[in-house]
Amino acid sequence: MFGFKLLATDSGARAGELVTPHGSVPTPVFMPVGTQATVKTLWPRQLLDVDVPMVLANTYHLHLRPGEETVRSLGGLHRFMSWPRPILTDSGGFQVFSLAELTRITEAGVRFQSHIDGRTIELTPESVVDIQHKLGADILMPLDECTAFPTEKDYAREAMERTLGWAQRSIEHHRRCGTAAPGRATSANSTAEGGRATHDKGLQALFGIVQGASYADLRVACARRLVAMGFPGYAIGGLSVGEGPQVMNEMLEATVPELPEDRPRYLMGVGPPGDLLAAIARGIDMFDCVLPTRNGRNGFAFTSTGIIRMKNARHATSDLPVDPACDCTTCQTFSRGYIRHLFKADEILAMSLVSLHNVAFFCKLMHDVRRAVIEGRFETFRKAFGESQIEK
Amino acid sequence: MFGFKLLATDSGARAGELVTPHGSVPTPVFMPVGTQATVKTLWPRQLLDVDVPMVLANTYHLHLRPGEETVRSLGGLHRFMSWPRPILTDSGGFQVFSLAELTRITEAGVRFQSHIDGRTIELTPESVVDIQHKLGADILMPLDECTAFPTEKDYAREAMERTLGWAQRSIEHHRRCGTAAPGRATSANSTAEGGRATHDKGLQALFGIVQGASYADLRVACARRLVAMGFPGYAIGGLSVGEGPQVMNEMLEATVPELPEDRPRYLMGVGPPGDLLAAIARGIDMFDCVLPTRNGRNGFAFTSTGIIRMKNARHATSDLPVDPACDCTTCQTFSRGYIRHLFKADEILAMSLVSLHNVAFFCKLMHDVRRAVIEGRFETFRKAFGESQIEK
Repeated sequence: MFGFKLLATDSGARAGELVTPHGSVPTPVFMPVGTQATVKTLWPRQLLDVDVPMVLANTYHLHLRPGEETVRSLGGLHRFMSWPRPILTDSGGFQVFSLAELTRITEAGVRFQSHIDGRTIELTPESVVDIQHKLGADILMPLDECTAFPTEKDYAREAMERTLGWAQRSIEHHRRCGTAAPGRATSANSTAEGGRATHDKGLQALFGIVQGASYADLRVACARRLVAMGFPGYAIGGLSVGEGPQVMNEMLEATVPELPEDRPRYLMGVGPPGDLLAAIARGIDMFDCVLPTRNGRNGFAFTSTGIIRMKNARHATSDLPVDPACDCTTCQTFSRGYIRHLFKADEILAMSLVSLHNVAFFCKLMHDVRRAVIEGRFETFRKAFGESQIEK
Repeated sequence: MFGFKLLATDSGARAGELVTPHGSVPTPVFMPVGTQATVKTLWPRQLLDVDVPMVLANTYHLHLRPGEETVRSLGGLHRFMSWPRPILTDSGGFQVFSLAELTRITEAGVRFQSHIDGRTIELTPESVVDIQHKLGADILMPLDECTAFPTEKDYAREAMERTLGWAQRSIEHHRRCGTAAPGRATSANSTAEGGRATHDKGLQALFGIVQGASYADLRVACARRLVAMGFPGYAIGGLSVGEGPQVMNEMLEATVPELPEDRPRYLMGVGPPGDLLAAIARGIDMFDCVLPTRNGRNGFAFTSTGIIRMKNARHATSDLPVDPACDCTTCQTFSRGYIRHLFKADEILAMSLVSLHNVAFFCKLMHDVRRAVIEGRFETFRKAFGESQIEK
């Protein structure tokens, strides 16, 4: 029930299709982030309206609140958040190392204080897999150690070794427990968003995560050893943490050739449109980032001519939509002048309108890239896109 | 283009139909409040989905920000906020007396400091009508003086006299200016919410507002003198300001019989479902109140069994919808457990989900009341509704 089909390649870029228990996803794909089982300010119906193919939710946050048992008792993550399409849950590794007060990290796992109430939490590679089995996402991520930038090479190697050890334990635990338990039978209220969601753990796919900080040789070593473990997909973590585009691209160029062609490649936490295109040119298939929703809430809109600031006075009497080239619900309905008014008046609807547009923009970009790859004109597309982004 | 048809009466309650330039509205009607040209947290499309027939917007707030000229330049209020159905704008009198720092009130008008930036604003009966002509709502309200509770009778009489003088000037100004100017031709982007909105000032209806504080004789006198001026509809203002249900009902019982049967009657700023039914029993046709949206943002849901607090721990694992008897988008899609999680996690979507449900609940209540009136079982309906409201 999980698979990846590579359909076309062009100048390093790939067009493919992820097959998951909740349907197929065209790649390259951008996943809006629904940290707490909601893509901030948006209804699932609105995400479907702009054809979002897949979303991400966060294991760390959902473990702390409401807890995976609550999510499971309410039918699993798909039904909980009324999202009928595929979901990926990240492992929480990044959050443990960035949000929480970390008290101990050992080979066994991590111990830290919850950023919500300070209580002590312990996570192991096995418990992180268990949590995600209960959440019921389509794609799971193993616990990893995400180092900051810059990191000394010795520590980067140590963290990478720990991540590899955890990856081995994660895949073993997933194979042992992930196929044995039956999917929980769902019941009660159907959703208006596309019917019942089931979560048979045997259908879930666990990806491996390549770490190695900004050291190409560590990245290569990590990728090779993960590939030997035989994951159905590979993520590249620990990038977009301040190393800059040049280093990021170097790491991608070192890593991607080590990954099997017939498995999806996921660059975690990236990013602005230009970075997406640069990573796609290096063979990446999947992305997630808070950028469209966070920028949307702050009034920054991505458009076909560049980023515009909706709060700017020059939009006050503008009857134009956010992006005249966009067919999302926001652009088909509201003027820049109205949206600017809502921001100035501190109205929540403002955040929602621009978040939806931005999410639509990222999904449309992936759609257009995919078509360009299939039609063999990716480089032309990428160049034209770069030149179009002039508005500030 | 403006009219009112009385279709049925039953035990004092009325069922009718308001005819406006933006379509017909079944009465009794509850208008959700869109103070700043947005019903807080909700998209117009969502209001249409739960069949909201009409909304209210606020002259005072829109005059201060973004200004009526901006709204007019963006096609008038309907197009500005993408709301295709009727809109009523209140005069801002209530806000001047409650929100702003009032510096002077004379026969000529009011002068006060803006609650946003402190600048001095002057409003006269004429300017308030002009502002509303520019906003382009279907129903306008004249400037009135809304006294606090309690108010000495001498002052209540003085304020009532001032309100009557302003009403006379308002209707004269509206007749003089409201029919002369042609509707502004609209252009540019159509809306997904139901097409273009026009605002021909000649089609707008100006209501009279009955004041008189908690003194029945003042209310009667005020109503009679307003009726002599010949308004197409009558509002009752200055109630629900702390006088309690008994006094409010006494004022309604004194006032309503003075109002012509063939004109709609609008009780401003009311209120909880029980108060709505009590007022309907006394012949009121129209209401507005922030209650469904404000309570929604705070996690209080109106249901067929009473108010429930969505943040309550007992909902944590509840797979029930907010109200099993409700067919709104929220109740058809999400569980109480999910909504409680969103509130605990401070997610904006929580406010939106419960606001929509509450708005749907109020609209459905009016729909059900209307049918009961037409079918001659209003008292039975009202009694049964009161008995159903047990949950706290």
